[in-house]
Amino acid sequence: MTATAPDHDLTDHPLLAAHAGVLDEARAALAARSWFSRYPESPSPRVYGEAAAADGLAAHESHLNQPFSALSSQPTDGSFVGSEVSPYGPALGVTYPVLELDAGLAAARAAMPAWRDAGAPVRAAVCVEIVDRINRRSFEMANAVMHTSGQPFVMAFQAGGPHAQDRAIEAIVAGLVEQERFPASVVWEKPARDHPIRMRKDYRIVPRGVALVIGCNTFPTWNAYPGLFASLVTGNAVVVKPHPRAVLPLAITVEVAREVLTEAGFDAALVQLAAEADGQGLAKTLAERDEIAIIDYTGGPTFGAWLEQSAAATGTLVYTEKAGLNTVVVDSTDDLRGTLGNLAFSLTLYSGQMCTAPQNLYVPAVGIDTDEGHLSFDEFGDRLGAAVSRLTGDDAKAVELLGATVNAQVRDNADSLAALAADGEGRVVLDSRRVTHPSWPDAVVRAPGLVAIDAAREDLYTQECFGPVGFLIRTSSTDQSLAQLADTVHEHGAMTAAVYSTSESVLEAAREAAAEGGVALSENLTGPVFVNQTAAFSDLHGTGANPAANAAYTDAAFVASRFRVITSRRHV
Amino acid sequence: MTATAPDHDLTDHPLLAAHAGVLDEARAALAARSWFSRYPESPSPRVYGEAAAADGLAAHESHLNQPFSALSSQPTDGSFVGSEVSPYGPALGVTYPVLELDAGLAAARAAMPAWRDAGAPVRAAVCVEIVDRINRRSFEMANAVMHTSGQPFVMAFQAGGPHAQDRAIEAIVAGLVEQERFPASVVWEKPARDHPIRMRKDYRIVPRGVALVIGCNTFPTWNAYPGLFASLVTGNAVVVKPHPRAVLPLAITVEVAREVLTEAGFDAALVQLAAEADGQGLAKTLAERDEIAIIDYTGGPTFGAWLEQSAAATGTLVYTEKAGLNTVVVDSTDDLRGTLGNLAFSLTLYSGQMCTAPQNLYVPAVGIDTDEGHLSFDEFGDRLGAAVSRLTGDDAKAVELLGATVNAQVRDNADSLAALAADGEGRVVLDSRRVTHPSWPDAVVRAPGLVAIDAAREDLYTQECFGPVGFLIRTSSTDQSLAQLADTVHEHGAMTAAVYSTSESVLEAAREAAAEGGVALSENLTGPVFVNQTAAFSDLHGTGANPAANAAYTDAAFVASRFRVITSRRHV
Repeated sequence: MTATAPDHDLTDHPLLAAHAGVLDEARAALAARSWFSRYPESPSPRVYGEAAAADGLAAHESHLNQPFSALSSQPTDGSFVGSEVSPYGPALGVTYPVLELDAGLAAARAAMPAWRDAGAPVRAAVCVEIVDRINRRSFEMANAVMHTSGQPFVMAFQAGGPHAQDRAIEAIVAGLVEQERFPASVVWEKPARDHPIRMRKDYRIVPRGVALVIGCNTFPTWNAYPGLFASLVTGNAVVVKPHPRAVLPLAITVEVAREVLTEAGFDAALVQLAAEADGQGLAKTLAERDEIAIIDYTGGPTFGAWLEQSAAATGTLVYTEKAGLNTVVVDSTDDLRGTLGNLAFSLTLYSGQMCTAPQNLYVPAVGIDTDEGHLSFDEFGDRLGAAVSRLTGDDAKAVELLGATVNAQVRDNADSLAALAADGEGRVVLDSRRVTHPSWPDAVVRAPGLVAIDAAREDLYTQECFGPVGFLIRTSSTDQSLAQLADTVHEHGAMTAAVYSTSESVLEAAREAAAEGGVALSENLTGPVFVNQTAAFSDLHGTGANPAANAAYTDAAFVASRFRVITSRRHV
Repeated sequence: MTATAPDHDLTDHPLLAAHAGVLDEARAALAARSWFSRYPESPSPRVYGEAAAADGLAAHESHLNQPFSALSSQPTDGSFVGSEVSPYGPALGVTYPVLELDAGLAAARAAMPAWRDAGAPVRAAVCVEIVDRINRRSFEMANAVMHTSGQPFVMAFQAGGPHAQDRAIEAIVAGLVEQERFPASVVWEKPARDHPIRMRKDYRIVPRGVALVIGCNTFPTWNAYPGLFASLVTGNAVVVKPHPRAVLPLAITVEVAREVLTEAGFDAALVQLAAEADGQGLAKTLAERDEIAIIDYTGGPTFGAWLEQSAAATGTLVYTEKAGLNTVVVDSTDDLRGTLGNLAFSLTLYSGQMCTAPQNLYVPAVGIDTDEGHLSFDEFGDRLGAAVSRLTGDDAKAVELLGATVNAQVRDNADSLAALAADGEGRVVLDSRRVTHPSWPDAVVRAPGLVAIDAAREDLYTQECFGPVGFLIRTSSTDQSLAQLADTVHEHGAMTAAVYSTSESVLEAAREAAAEGGVALSENLTGPVFVNQTAAFSDLHGTGANPAANAAYTDAAFVASRFRVITSRRHV
């Protein structure tokens, strides 16, 4: 058996050599699940340059109150849409050319054969180049993400920039590795009586079709990049349908992708933006098009469930991330201060508007043992409330963690704690405080609140209450807490779970409960790592094993079905 | 970053050492797509022993007219079903205990945690042991497959035995490789200003749930083993629902699996047989059960489409192989004799009742150039008909290739050639001949027939006509032939395609057409390899890229979604 590289992989495309190193490093990191980051997460001028922040802000401001002209080469009927309003107050005033769907999807299909025939290594190198170029615009992107999602600036920089870019590299290399499993060509030799049977067999990677990426409002880039780059690297064309209130970050992304694709000798129609007016329902229109073969979706559970049912039933590959009940089981701790600080930060960050933010905190009715002595259920709640209050007490500092609330539903949820406590015969441990933003007076900023209720009141806490609301749930014991973790996550889903315990047997039981519920578990986080956070190449985001998401960033299941292998064989 | 093996993989399970060698060899073969076969395909006494054939027949006969008692440990209500009748004539008279579904599915679920915690290497070793034990019963299995599918004996031995077993090993190692992508445990280290952040992260493979394998009548083992072993090796329990007319081969399979699982220290409920009365509709009942998380199906397109739509819409992972239009494009040849012999054999084998048998043969109206001179369209048809007649002219020899027809639909199709020709204003080139079986007078044996029609009559040839019927389709040119290949396969599906041409540019165009249609291509087969045949570890069976099948035996997409990975992390 001899393996040879196929003609189409023997190209001398200049990006191949340019990015061979990073792809090798990323491939090794993926296999070992070791720390790997291509893009520095610090927005420090020492890293990105003294002028980077000001230049990025200027670039952002140059978009405002203008048509986004960089996408004018897309097929369009000439009309524009756009109604983004920053959660910090101002309308962005950016408008985007409307994609003419028939022409756009036809262009996407026409662009695929050359992209397919370029081979996986060239595609991966071109994708890395796209991400590198996006990285250079990280400060501009930070402003775009901040003023669409409401994230605080540093978070918008990190999650919207380098962290999203690292997840993109992860998806690219995961897709490359799966494609590399098939040698391009082999000579196969089967022993036989006289002389062996020898055949040349060529394995050709073909895409599934046009992929649709449906973006969300809160993490427009971070949640879109894995699907976008996983589909692109496996040979598919991609139509990006951003959330109508978070278009700009993905418009910049698509602009860069089209620019790089064109420079690299491919058709810009491989990546297109399909902006829509708020309420237009373009995602459904696109999902029902015959050309669409893959859908990546982040957003609410109702439309996500429709996609999983209706679109999947037509053979479309559907990856979703919807909603869940992120869960913390508090049993005991030998570092109360660290525990409270860590939990307070997790609840506070972006006002709980992360899909990974904790919501349901189970605490036994008898209270918990700590290094500061035994705390009753109510005492633990009060201490956690105090920790949140301390962290968010100063408005000017608090807004750098909280950001702004993204929509009316979040604000309604923030206002609901008293009603929840009354309904549940519980107690408002800490109400959600209104914070005044020193620079953006129109921003609605809310600190997290906590309401204590009994575990019997599943009617209140087994639905997602998105935003700055945490439930302290009184259980009969840690055993019940863990049973609730397994059962509620299995039934309703979760993106994250955490446990605090000094008991190895409780931790072991928590691992069992997490495995049963199908959710990743963080144990005794008291330092600089938070349950909300996952690291590319190491932590999976989602598991696919519970109803919150059928996708995991990025396992083989997320990439292996995005392409197919066509064999041709002949005697030699 | 240091990686360590997890406790649960450090077992000293004796099967680990016993099968490490074969798993290493199979892993290497899968990566290189080189020839690999664990189980000799020759039924020769020199290979399997002088007594093997007689012992296998005796074992088969001992099943007849008896309850299949080896499965009496399954949960049952005490009733039995069974109405298998050999396509060669006799009723088998075997009855099978009815699986009590509530208890059976509960037992399957209860069996999974220990199987999950055994770890992938132990699971793979146990699965190899199951297949090894099945191999020892290959002659008994050959009789069971012959007298349920109607395959001729040697084919029943090979396809039902060693070839199916090799595909099982392929699925096992493909599933193992995907699980091995995740180290069981790592220490992750992120650089930080003072000292690095270090976390231990454990990755735990968890199954999706209970898998359902729905067997078919024609290849009860070959088509069932990939899904069965792919699900089992990834930690799932499996319920095998055989075709009501091909139960015995899978009953033997399940018997062996349960025996080995028990001996290896696991719960036999990991593999159960759900036999049903003909027409009972048990597949649908099972597919609708909440416990069922994965379905592998081989069979008719109507129920297959229902599974793809309805079961997939509930989040169940559905792999199907249904039906298609296997296609041959004849353009020219420098080995007419080899071409005719090869095509005649492919049409003849098992009376065209292979899902991979050619049906639509496109030939240009102007005829073809050959090493024996130019042949008109009709001359080529007549020469092919003569080749089939020569191959199948002697009844006693013919039955060893043709086997027996499996059902009334096949027999109706065999009787339909004159009507097809009349409908299509075409010509019966060769009618399907009735062959008398010297040993089994009640067997209905049919040699293949050929009907010539024009390419315009898509109404006749764009549906599967299962069995001994081939269409010689007159096209305006090879260009049209290739366009029809791409279009009809894209729309209706195909498991196989072939091309005969002396022109490199036609071959290149055929590769393009096959890539567009999404089907594997065999080029200029004139020797001992046939388009119907695929080799495990080298050829994919199906591509997933056309409507005939969304599954490919065995690519990563076939295995990677059958399990999930649950991370737990903590500081160290």
